Amino acid sequence: MKKVIILGSTGSIGTQTLEVIDNTEGFKVLALACGRNIELLKSQIKKYSPEMVSVENENDALNLQAEFPKVKVLPSKEGFKEIIKLDYDILVVATSGIIAVQTVLKAIENKKPIALANKETLVMAGDIVMKKAREYNCPIIPIDSEHSAILQCLHGDNNPKRLWITASGGPFLNNTREEMADFSFKDALKHPRWAMGKKITIDCSTLVNKGLEVIEAHHLYNFNYENIKVLIHPQSYVHSLVEFIDGSYLAQLGVPSMHIPIQYALCYPSRQKGIESNKFDLFNKKLEFFKPDYNKFPLLPLTIECGKQGGIMPAVLNAANEVAVYKFLRGEVGFLDIERIVFNAVEKTNNLSNPSIDDIFEEDKKVRRSLEI
Amino acid sequence: MKKVIILGSTGSIGTQTLEVIDNTEGFKVLALACGRNIELLKSQIKKYSPEMVSVENENDALNLQAEFPKVKVLPSKEGFKEIIKLDYDILVVATSGIIAVQTVLKAIENKKPIALANKETLVMAGDIVMKKAREYNCPIIPIDSEHSAILQCLHGDNNPKRLWITASGGPFLNNTREEMADFSFKDALKHPRWAMGKKITIDCSTLVNKGLEVIEAHHLYNFNYENIKVLIHPQSYVHSLVEFIDGSYLAQLGVPSMHIPIQYALCYPSRQKGIESNKFDLFNKKLEFFKPDYNKFPLLPLTIECGKQGGIMPAVLNAANEVAVYKFLRGEVGFLDIERIVFNAVEKTNNLSNPSIDDIFEEDKKVRRSLEI
Repeated sequence: MKKVIILGSTGSIGTQTLEVIDNTEGFKVLALACGRNIELLKSQIKKYSPEMVSVENENDALNLQAEFPKVKVLPSKEGFKEIIKLDYDILVVATSGIIAVQTVLKAIENKKPIALANKETLVMAGDIVMKKAREYNCPIIPIDSEHSAILQCLHGDNNPKRLWITASGGPFLNNTREEMADFSFKDALKHPRWAMGKKITIDCSTLVNKGLEVIEAHHLYNFNYENIKVLIHPQSYVHSLVEFIDGSYLAQLGVPSMHIPIQYALCYPSRQKGIESNKFDLFNKKLEFFKPDYNKFPLLPLTIECGKQGGIMPAVLNAANEVAVYKFLRGEVGFLDIERIVFNAVEKTNNLSNPSIDDIFEEDKKVRRSLEI
Repeated sequence: MKKVIILGSTGSIGTQTLEVIDNTEGFKVLALACGRNIELLKSQIKKYSPEMVSVENENDALNLQAEFPKVKVLPSKEGFKEIIKLDYDILVVATSGIIAVQTVLKAIENKKPIALANKETLVMAGDIVMKKAREYNCPIIPIDSEHSAILQCLHGDNNPKRLWITASGGPFLNNTREEMADFSFKDALKHPRWAMGKKITIDCSTLVNKGLEVIEAHHLYNFNYENIKVLIHPQSYVHSLVEFIDGSYLAQLGVPSMHIPIQYALCYPSRQKGIESNKFDLFNKKLEFFKPDYNKFPLLPLTIECGKQGGIMPAVLNAANEVAVYKFLRGEVGFLDIERIVFNAVEKTNNLSNPSIDDIFEEDKKVRRSLEI
């Protein structure tokens, strides 16, 4: 029995992780943590009987503790610290935000595999996190479909030359910049392939998401930015590819379901029987591939450039983008204003080389404060 | 330095193997063998200075020995036996016919890797050859692009569920049976993707070739026939796929060049820098996949069925097909007569279980004799 901790159990990745556990032999839920979706957490507690849970709000924690006296219930900040002291086999990090980064940094010391769905960890603090992970020999296994695809293609093979990260291209693939300027957030949320949250859907529309994945791939696989490429693939069946030095490519394919990368991360390095509904075949499928249009989606090259510059730049870009996207989702700014806001924030930043984790968090806060005014 | 022996050095695979060696560090040609293309062999001797060569004809051998006194020259049957006694690191078997089967069976005892391009070996005698290879722990590495693709996708990974062998579909993919009946061998030789010999081009037109590859895959990877599938992929960029139990697929892609599988076999299990002209990218590429039409190409299911029945049936099918294709190439029979001849030969055979290698060769001769009359 592999004992699993899920941080972010009521979110999209968290609930799908539990679906995978329901359908895969050999896993036991040891602890769960969530934000404020207490009703869903209650049903998860009843179903999985975890030893410990953590919730964001102190009052929620007290109420839950009264209702489930056998479960140890803690409020989030303290809870995360206690949870990762448990004797687990795999830690799934599916929460968003800075608390995930701090938790991952601490958990690395346990040397147990971390299945990572949180983007901030590697985008903001990739250098620090991966350096520590190598030092402690702690496996960081990506849950993202693209990075999972790359891991599967690299598995056991050597001499990779380039990583090719596929992108559906988002809802604006075939629109002009003029048309994009007029789009409302409702249009942007009609994303063709994956069921996703609102924030990430907008990031797919601007292709910021792909830029962030390039940064993550750089850290996860220790690849130069020059050898990480983005490839538009509207059908979303090929989840990424590895090009080898001999001219051969390996690609990972399947239905666009998060169950597969989640299960791969939980079972790594072996595989187990998949969920029936994720069956896939290629009969009558057509797969297309295009070069991304950097002029039409300038946030893609900007994000990659911030990755290359390193230091605090990825954190600045990430914070500015997050604020801008929420402004757009609240109807306060237009779609192309997201670009404007992010470019401005990046341009007026003086980079800092070899920042500490506190420098990075400080800069993140500073950018958010300056933009929220 | 890896010392390489190439049996069949003047054929298509042999010459391409030498091109790969020209472009890959760390290989030395130890011995060469060919049939009757003496002029090409002479230039190969001058360029690579092998220790030993073998040619089919005794007179050719005597003349060559006079011209190259420092090289040991032998006639084919004896030559093959002597050549595999040399201290080699890898044996490339790119000759056709029964002599390859006998040589592979003997060479397995050396426990050195055999890079196998010859189809007869596994089609006619797969059970015997692979049993002996396992007994002696001798690696059999396929040179075929499809089987190389599967090896690359399996590499280091576990729990495969199905193998998917891709087929361009041949020149008749979009023709009716009526149109096929009228085709001449000139039409059939206009094969869209790969530069190949005439015999194999016709085998691609009837899809017999894919059936034979299914048989080879069964032996190479110890897979049930039920879990080896054929997938039509007209663009020939995906050279085959592996489906895993979790619903994930890995595919190997690249230009349709034999250099890549040849180099992979020579360098296995690592990779080396590929030949410049084999560079590949997916920009603006469209990949399509279809179910093969078993009614239109009945030799495909017949070939797989002969594989399933085992015994002498694959050898009977192989021999009847070879005779029928050469009759077609000489203009003696029509395209659809190939099917008729092969079906007849298979139907009137009483299978023999657990045949010896001599039983198989005997049956091969018998079928050829009966059809050549």
